[in-house]
Amino acid sequence: MFPDEELKISPERKTALQNLEEKLAYQFAHLELLETALTHDSFAFETRGPNIPRNERLEFLGDAVLELVASDELYRLFPLVDEGELSQMRSTLVSRERLAEISRGMDLGNFLNLSQGETLTGGREKDSIIAAALEAVFGAIYLDGGINAAREAIGRILNPFFSDLARGRISRDFKSDLQEITQERFKKLPVYWIVSETGPDHAKVFQAEVNLPDSSLSATGTGKTKRAAEQAAARSLLEKLPGNNSHA
Amino acid sequence: MFPDEELKISPERKTALQNLEEKLAYQFAHLELLETALTHDSFAFETRGPNIPRNERLEFLGDAVLELVASDELYRLFPLVDEGELSQMRSTLVSRERLAEISRGMDLGNFLNLSQGETLTGGREKDSIIAAALEAVFGAIYLDGGINAAREAIGRILNPFFSDLARGRISRDFKSDLQEITQERFKKLPVYWIVSETGPDHAKVFQAEVNLPDSSLSATGTGKTKRAAEQAAARSLLEKLPGNNSHA
Repeated sequence: MFPDEELKISPERKTALQNLEEKLAYQFAHLELLETALTHDSFAFETRGPNIPRNERLEFLGDAVLELVASDELYRLFPLVDEGELSQMRSTLVSRERLAEISRGMDLGNFLNLSQGETLTGGREKDSIIAAALEAVFGAIYLDGGINAAREAIGRILNPFFSDLARGRISRDFKSDLQEITQERFKKLPVYWIVSETGPDHAKVFQAEVNLPDSSLSATGTGKTKRAAEQAAARSLLEKLPGNNSHA
Repeated sequence: MFPDEELKISPERKTALQNLEEKLAYQFAHLELLETALTHDSFAFETRGPNIPRNERLEFLGDAVLELVASDELYRLFPLVDEGELSQMRSTLVSRERLAEISRGMDLGNFLNLSQGETLTGGREKDSIIAAALEAVFGAIYLDGGINAAREAIGRILNPFFSDLARGRISRDFKSDLQEITQERFKKLPVYWIVSETGPDHAKVFQAEVNLPDSSLSATGTGKTKRAAEQAAARSLLEKLPGNNSHA
């Protein structure tokens, strides 16, 4: 299963890798997997040794691992957010820039096996190289410890960004505000529908309607996306709500 | 965790869903999840009942589940295939057309909750609707039974296509042929490098070199992708191999 099991790792290198393991808060059973994840194609080419691994296949796998872990977290954290906005959140969360920023935070560039040429031209700082290496590390953790190990490691790393997303929403999000109120008063969620969808594809206008769980009050709103229309409807309903002046 | 737990499912509907569970060879602990996966947005809008679920968020999740399961299988099944070709294989494997074909095979369209309007215009046959519903079903299995349940269910469904991929490669693949020979003679893999990469981005030419594990023989080849260059090198080495006339 692990073609790189014969990979030799020197004692000095092992100490360095243990340092990285501490930053990841994950200890590998198969340290060769981490070493492979850290080995850029340029190094394998320059060294020309037999059995030099490259991290590209692990990056392929790690990208999918990261995508699932992020999707799963977003799905559970934001039960009222529609799939369009979830996709946007996910893109932001796992963008190359974000991954590169995280890699810099753990000094990942300095752990890479990189050719002299790439090193001299600043390869250890290149977004493309260090973001790919981080994805490869996620792939290595997944192979080494399974999805739960990957979920935990990725969770620890992405947690601050999830919190940002949640805070960002709560401060500006009429749907969440309305939900909190109906949960408290009715133990139920407000009910949304998209009432109409008009205009050509490039300039759609959606109209949404929202009802209190007991149907005692409703409001509508329009917007360029379903979500925006629902936000407008939620805002309008909040304004109509007796005893709720915070949004009037 | 499951906002749709209050969803009522009639006894007749339950019988229908059990029929689908048999086709999936998976039994849900939370049948509401399957019902949600089968409910198209048009139905939720038309019915306008409170708490009508929609399958779009499950589709978002299921897409990521499918991507990981497919990536993982491909990674393990094809240890010598590079990440570029793995990506191509994955795209083919989980394309909308393929998913729609699979959905038709299990008659998924007829299990959908769809608006009358969509039904009258052939919605139960639309690739976009039935492929999305299948992804939502994968997302539902994942939430219901975890990644291993999803892996098994998706594996059963995609297995024939994995086998096709493997067969297709073995009959046309010089790298695999060479690998079989070196594994037998040396118990090791041949060693590939990309020697050079020339030309502008839209017309790159790669040159690859391949060595026998004991470095006793080498060959080069060129191609428009790394993989094609490696294939050409493998073919050339096979022709040079003493005692191997099958490719001369």
